[in-house]
Amino acid sequence: MRTIGALLFPGFETLDLFGPVQMFGSVKDAFSFSMVAEHSETVPSRHGQSIGVDHTFDENQGYDLLLVPGGPGTWDQIDNPRLLKWIARASQKAEVVMSVCTGAAFLANAGLLRGKLATTNKMNFDWVTQFGDDISWQGRTRWVEDGKLFTSSGVTAGMDMSLAVIEVLLGVDAADGAAIHSEYVRQRDPENDPFALHFGVE
Amino acid sequence: MRTIGALLFPGFETLDLFGPVQMFGSVKDAFSFSMVAEHSETVPSRHGQSIGVDHTFDENQGYDLLLVPGGPGTWDQIDNPRLLKWIARASQKAEVVMSVCTGAAFLANAGLLRGKLATTNKMNFDWVTQFGDDISWQGRTRWVEDGKLFTSSGVTAGMDMSLAVIEVLLGVDAADGAAIHSEYVRQRDPENDPFALHFGVE
Repeated sequence: MRTIGALLFPGFETLDLFGPVQMFGSVKDAFSFSMVAEHSETVPSRHGQSIGVDHTFDENQGYDLLLVPGGPGTWDQIDNPRLLKWIARASQKAEVVMSVCTGAAFLANAGLLRGKLATTNKMNFDWVTQFGDDISWQGRTRWVEDGKLFTSSGVTAGMDMSLAVIEVLLGVDAADGAAIHSEYVRQRDPENDPFALHFGVE
Repeated sequence: MRTIGALLFPGFETLDLFGPVQMFGSVKDAFSFSMVAEHSETVPSRHGQSIGVDHTFDENQGYDLLLVPGGPGTWDQIDNPRLLKWIARASQKAEVVMSVCTGAAFLANAGLLRGKLATTNKMNFDWVTQFGDDISWQGRTRWVEDGKLFTSSGVTAGMDMSLAVIEVLLGVDAADGAAIHSEYVRQRDPENDPFALHFGVE
């Protein structure tokens, strides 16, 4: 059983978090989740739901996988030193580090993407790509794998990225099984990204 | 601004709830959400996240739309008289009543689907369709619209159903905009249902 530490912060994009939770959670007895935040109080999603916190940054837990969502709260939290420190520290121990949407800005600002290929959502591509140094930002792609770092485009792209991670860790049958359980038609080809064109990102 | 009352019960399927929340929530200033449950304590999703409750059944709030998710907790709650009474009562006032996955069993058991076309998820089709009387269950379809009742197949089918509801209420541009915001490739054709075949449902 692998553990997934999922970052919560006020104003995270709801499906950036729960899309991956559904996909990883649809592989029987393979992954468990911890919701991790700065404080122990419940955290409001962008759409107003209150989500319970399992661990705070200070508890210094190790996780096998990290999941970093984006959303409008990214703007407020992007320079939060405790959040960035948690990401940097937890990433060292993790087998896989994932971001969805503007969550890539946290990975960039924490220094994790230096020398790496990465992507983010297309609506806020210019804002996110100002963070970090020496990052090869990829425009027209639904997600990018570079070593243990997986970065996805916006919201539902995180579901396809999660299935790609499951396939790397556990094989194609596990990934396809998770998609079928969720009655989800996978997008297997990361280069199939109509939204880059829509938002004028090359 | 329309209100959406979303049912919470222990062991609901995570994305049955949060997929629709993301889609409706991606239409700017059009919908607000209330999480509704039997008790005021937080409710655990199937995957272990604790979700805060905004209103209990007893508060007898009215909502413009109802959202009833499914999931493994359906088996425990299917004969809960307070839950069924809440659904029956709240549905009378609602403009649209939606179920995702095995959530259709609640609508059936509450008597809402009598004389109606409806569907549910394909993995548990035989279990769900034992509930209710005089229901025309549809096998090979991703979602079904019959008057104000919208029932969808499993998990991510609820996202396509939500976009169809947005299209009915606010037009195709609003629905397409919500999908684009979430970088989601809509399935517009409810009859495109590969999962019915996969699970042997005709």
